Amino acid sequence: MTNSFLFEQIKLKASFLCVGLDIDLDKIPKHLLEEEEDPIFAFAKAIIDSTHNYAVAYKPNLAFFESYGIQGWKAFKKVINYLNINHPNHFTIADAKRGDIGNTAGRYAKAFFNTYAVDSITVAPYMGRDSVEPFLAFEDKYAILLALTSNESAADFQYTQEKDQLLFEKVLKTSLDWKNNERLMYVVGATKAEAFSSIRKLVPNSFLLVPGIGAQGGILAEVAKNGMNDQCGLLVNSSRGIIYASQKNDFADAAANQAKKLQEEMELLLKFKGLI
Amino acid sequence: MTNSFLFEQIKLKASFLCVGLDIDLDKIPKHLLEEEEDPIFAFAKAIIDSTHNYAVAYKPNLAFFESYGIQGWKAFKKVINYLNINHPNHFTIADAKRGDIGNTAGRYAKAFFNTYAVDSITVAPYMGRDSVEPFLAFEDKYAILLALTSNESAADFQYTQEKDQLLFEKVLKTSLDWKNNERLMYVVGATKAEAFSSIRKLVPNSFLLVPGIGAQGGILAEVAKNGMNDQCGLLVNSSRGIIYASQKNDFADAAANQAKKLQEEMELLLKFKGLI
Repeated sequence: MTNSFLFEQIKLKASFLCVGLDIDLDKIPKHLLEEEEDPIFAFAKAIIDSTHNYAVAYKPNLAFFESYGIQGWKAFKKVINYLNINHPNHFTIADAKRGDIGNTAGRYAKAFFNTYAVDSITVAPYMGRDSVEPFLAFEDKYAILLALTSNESAADFQYTQEKDQLLFEKVLKTSLDWKNNERLMYVVGATKAEAFSSIRKLVPNSFLLVPGIGAQGGILAEVAKNGMNDQCGLLVNSSRGIIYASQKNDFADAAANQAKKLQEEMELLLKFKGLI
Repeated sequence: MTNSFLFEQIKLKASFLCVGLDIDLDKIPKHLLEEEEDPIFAFAKAIIDSTHNYAVAYKPNLAFFESYGIQGWKAFKKVINYLNINHPNHFTIADAKRGDIGNTAGRYAKAFFNTYAVDSITVAPYMGRDSVEPFLAFEDKYAILLALTSNESAADFQYTQEKDQLLFEKVLKTSLDWKNNERLMYVVGATKAEAFSSIRKLVPNSFLLVPGIGAQGGILAEVAKNGMNDQCGLLVNSSRGIIYASQKNDFADAAANQAKKLQEEMELLLKFKGLI
């Protein structure tokens, strides 16, 4: 995957939507639990089948898969395989927020890029360069570095001020010196729309993965206004708002409706920006 | 597990050694690969059997297990089960460095504390309070927060200076306001021995998990001098120096020798401090 390929897909679909797969067995329709041998995969497959025309990326949230033990990891592998075989042009993001020292980070990279064959993985910056560079050594793969997250307590440390620079700005700036930094994208929460302008000055060309639309209250138009670049440069994620739009038998249709609604808003914004 | 129970174990064993299980199939003795159905578990079991008298804790490194896919996760579960059944007084640490927003962090906590039944998990601080507190809600379990890590690029962000305070100091200080903060321990690299004194002023009573002895060059006596408190308060980890002391048939004996050597040094330091 490359930025320009991703931009082609965005133009083709008139969408920069990423569907987050935070699959919770307590929230998926009951009939799947009764009828399906692997309800996690069955749910994911139904969601993918119904939403793929409106989305350019899928983001399985590893915490949910991991919480179901071996069964969850098997389902994760099946979800990625299903996407890679049936929707190879969709960008896959393992939302795993890994971060560890050099030789260990290399192991995580190998796990996700080789064993599971995802296109990208979210990575935490706290341990610095040598915890991230191993992820950047894989051609065609991306590490998506946490910069400014969408949660309430993001400010605890990310706003730490050193001279005239906040920590998340330092993370962005420092990462530009790392080897193969063109394989980086960044997580910037939609709830921090006011920060997008200054972030765009630091990383004008990078794609930003933007969680926090919907359940967490971020506003799409503001994000697009301040964050869009000439290759769009945004992947806006929605998880619960799409996948749990209905918890009844019509869940896949309801998910499609919500995804379509966001896609239509995104189409408008892409047109307004003159990108399609 | 409680701090005082851990201290009892430390006194009983005259050791504050944690054995790190960074199990790499390229480094374990070849005969295990040929003879054993689950060589990861077989290796871990042999290491545990030969070292348990010299250690109070075991720390499986999840990146290594994860890189072997489903097979690795199955082996991880077997290792923890083996420890919980045969060595229930040994403290288990899932070195996973997880960190995510509230509901997701709760999932990780559930995965490790319930599904895998470990005593503790390492956690990254970047996302702040709501990414850590879900781990602290489990009675008898610990979250071990990254403060000052042992890797070369730790300084990239952990030394970010806000007024007269460095980021890792802010992490320590801030975490003391979190709910159930008595369920916290902290990662402090042995390579940063000079920082232990100031860290001890911030968190006088907490246990510190100290990687970086051996392969990474940290010095045990300095760590003990500056970091030990009246309950010892240290778990010093050695991984490769113990588990790959020999890669031949005598690997378990060689591991035991290395563990015993560290235990004897620790006994001396505990005596010097007057704790045993």
